[in-house]
Amino acid sequence: MIHVGIIGFGTVGTGTARILLGNRSILKERTGIDINLKKIADIDIKRDRGLKLPKGVLTPKADELLNDPEIDIVVELIGGTAIAKEMVLKAIDKGKHVVTANKALLATHGPEIFRAAGKHKVEIGFEASVAGGIPIVKVVREGLVANRIKAVYGIINGTSNYILTKMTEEKAEFSEVLKEAQKLGYAEADPTYDIEGIDSAHKLAILASLSYGSQYSIRDVHCEGISWISPMDIEFARELGYKIKLLAIAKETDGKVELRVHPTMIPEEYLISKVDGVFNAVYVEGDAVGSTLYYGRGAGDMPTGSAVVADIADISRNIVNGAHGRLSFSVSRKAKNLMKMEDVRSMYYFRFSALDKPGVLSKISGILGKYNISIVSVIQKGRREGKAVPLVVLTHMAREKDVVSAIREINRLSVVADKAAIIRVEGQENG
Amino acid sequence: MIHVGIIGFGTVGTGTARILLGNRSILKERTGIDINLKKIADIDIKRDRGLKLPKGVLTPKADELLNDPEIDIVVELIGGTAIAKEMVLKAIDKGKHVVTANKALLATHGPEIFRAAGKHKVEIGFEASVAGGIPIVKVVREGLVANRIKAVYGIINGTSNYILTKMTEEKAEFSEVLKEAQKLGYAEADPTYDIEGIDSAHKLAILASLSYGSQYSIRDVHCEGISWISPMDIEFARELGYKIKLLAIAKETDGKVELRVHPTMIPEEYLISKVDGVFNAVYVEGDAVGSTLYYGRGAGDMPTGSAVVADIADISRNIVNGAHGRLSFSVSRKAKNLMKMEDVRSMYYFRFSALDKPGVLSKISGILGKYNISIVSVIQKGRREGKAVPLVVLTHMAREKDVVSAIREINRLSVVADKAAIIRVEGQENG
Repeated sequence: MIHVGIIGFGTVGTGTARILLGNRSILKERTGIDINLKKIADIDIKRDRGLKLPKGVLTPKADELLNDPEIDIVVELIGGTAIAKEMVLKAIDKGKHVVTANKALLATHGPEIFRAAGKHKVEIGFEASVAGGIPIVKVVREGLVANRIKAVYGIINGTSNYILTKMTEEKAEFSEVLKEAQKLGYAEADPTYDIEGIDSAHKLAILASLSYGSQYSIRDVHCEGISWISPMDIEFARELGYKIKLLAIAKETDGKVELRVHPTMIPEEYLISKVDGVFNAVYVEGDAVGSTLYYGRGAGDMPTGSAVVADIADISRNIVNGAHGRLSFSVSRKAKNLMKMEDVRSMYYFRFSALDKPGVLSKISGILGKYNISIVSVIQKGRREGKAVPLVVLTHMAREKDVVSAIREINRLSVVADKAAIIRVEGQENG
Repeated sequence: MIHVGIIGFGTVGTGTARILLGNRSILKERTGIDINLKKIADIDIKRDRGLKLPKGVLTPKADELLNDPEIDIVVELIGGTAIAKEMVLKAIDKGKHVVTANKALLATHGPEIFRAAGKHKVEIGFEASVAGGIPIVKVVREGLVANRIKAVYGIINGTSNYILTKMTEEKAEFSEVLKEAQKLGYAEADPTYDIEGIDSAHKLAILASLSYGSQYSIRDVHCEGISWISPMDIEFARELGYKIKLLAIAKETDGKVELRVHPTMIPEEYLISKVDGVFNAVYVEGDAVGSTLYYGRGAGDMPTGSAVVADIADISRNIVNGAHGRLSFSVSRKAKNLMKMEDVRSMYYFRFSALDKPGVLSKISGILGKYNISIVSVIQKGRREGKAVPLVVLTHMAREKDVVSAIREINRLSVVADKAAIIRVEGQENG
């Protein structure tokens, strides 16, 4: 019998407990191991979580659990990076295996935690830290182990995907939809982490570390959010055959790894552009397997609990077979080989606010040409002589550095009324 | 160092060898283990596979490989169920772990093979036997281990999906598209296994065994093919908001497991109905994780090779850690709990060929009503007084047994010119 202790009895803690209790017999059937939820520690032991726990399981003291010699696996579900880190390091120090759903913790203090785990020969399970219930960590680390990973793209933040989906369906403003999402519980009171791409960047750092064998952190990820996206951009994207999604992208090109999170235009016929609402999806391209996609719920008590319990089952199998460390988090490459953002190449969508008068397009396209940015198509909407109208330009592949220079110069033109909106475009270079 | 021998140097054998040789350093980086392709046995050692093998690797004698004490893992890629079975049992008998992509073998002789493997304490890897490069075996067995699997649906035969996609896009006849597919190498000279659903049924038996803890075989699967599907049905489906796909379905309802492969109408907004061409996708619904989907290439040298090598890597990790049997193919339930096909409930699409004269619809709907089959909608196309025209009926949930009886009675009506076309409909019951 394997004994488990959970620290943190919030949403995911409750889901995890519900699965461990409710599916105990199924788990035994499927793994041959009896997994016992022995303790749950939380400062609030009063609140009703709608879950009947056996007597004596709930305790206000995490130490009671950390000091219990019978407990094999400690599950950290507190969140944040301060107390969570302390608890995780304590558990490791006491020789306990750890399962966590905490992407912020791993993307910030990963190296320290994995070093400690290596020293004490314990395992760290972190399936639930990326894309909730989708077993993407296992897929990248084991299922696609035969592949050189060429690219990993993901919609890995449900809140921002919900907002962009609603903006698209209802032609609504960002702020309006955000308020609605907060009311429905899909966005937090302080939504910064979700809408500014930080949560996605945490998860991308973890996916990239698995894919490219080095320890990437949140600091290695170029990160832009969605709060400035307007219904106008969504509508232009639609006219051009694209959807706008907040995409987390890791790619290896010529030995360099690029890591970036930003609003992205994706051809609407791509499967990933049909991933709507709070759902997540991760696209993985391997040199042998080609294109693959993994889709499911990226958050919530039960989906995230499903991933937590999968880690518990995996570690239990290793304990029973005396094989801990079987799948240690191997970081084989020291060098991060990061591509500088300025060297990243992409296609682009620009929306200029340009005065409707002769010669403006020629001026703008002249500057783009000077910086080696060639144009695929141009849309100009509305005629308001002498006034500002949107001028949309779609480009071929261009270098970020050139784009930054060109846009700076264009923004300074007297015929340009406002700063340009810039969205990177994914898809096949056509033409 | 782990030594591997491959028996069968065809398409998948070549892909597997290409990955083992070409990605050896990546595999070492990702697993910490050096995996050496020591031998390949094939009766044809002359044909150029476009792959440079180290000297001495290729041999015409499988025994050379089976008797090599250094070889830890034997990969069976011969196909078929006769010689393949002999080779697999021999390898097991010699204490070697086995990796196979052979769904027909497992769906026919699975119990015997797994029994032998259990006796000799060796592992059988079979990720490549279902859905090619998609790591669906790992996902169901490990990634979603915390879940009671409510349903598994899959497009798991690329050939038939290619044919249905082309029929849909080009409004073309089945026989025409099949010929084209054969010319392009997407269908075999004898396409029976693919187009009659047998290949899908083999794979479904394996998926169901993993999901429901009993050993299901091809004989447990109700199986219908796509060769009778007409462009007319595809067009009616489109009008009603559906796509037609060859779906393999495993579901547990009230403790009974239903296993069936047949053409299925799927709401066109479902992600799986957008899976086109030779691509595969498997939808898995778990009680904790909810809806998930896995998408990728279901066949081909490199995608299937990716799955074969993932199994080799997994078994290698277990060998190195002394943990073979860590993930044995546990069959916990003896009882298959199969639902009889006649008890299966589904929504239905019927296309009758009925004479265009007053009272016909009333006769047909009267018989349906008698058997408790209630109608969602009716389409009648074309007016040819006194001649046969298509009459399409979409139903609410009905029992297969009632449908069989009703259709038999309707087919006998003098106002009905031809046998009814019957397609089961998946999706939310709306009404």
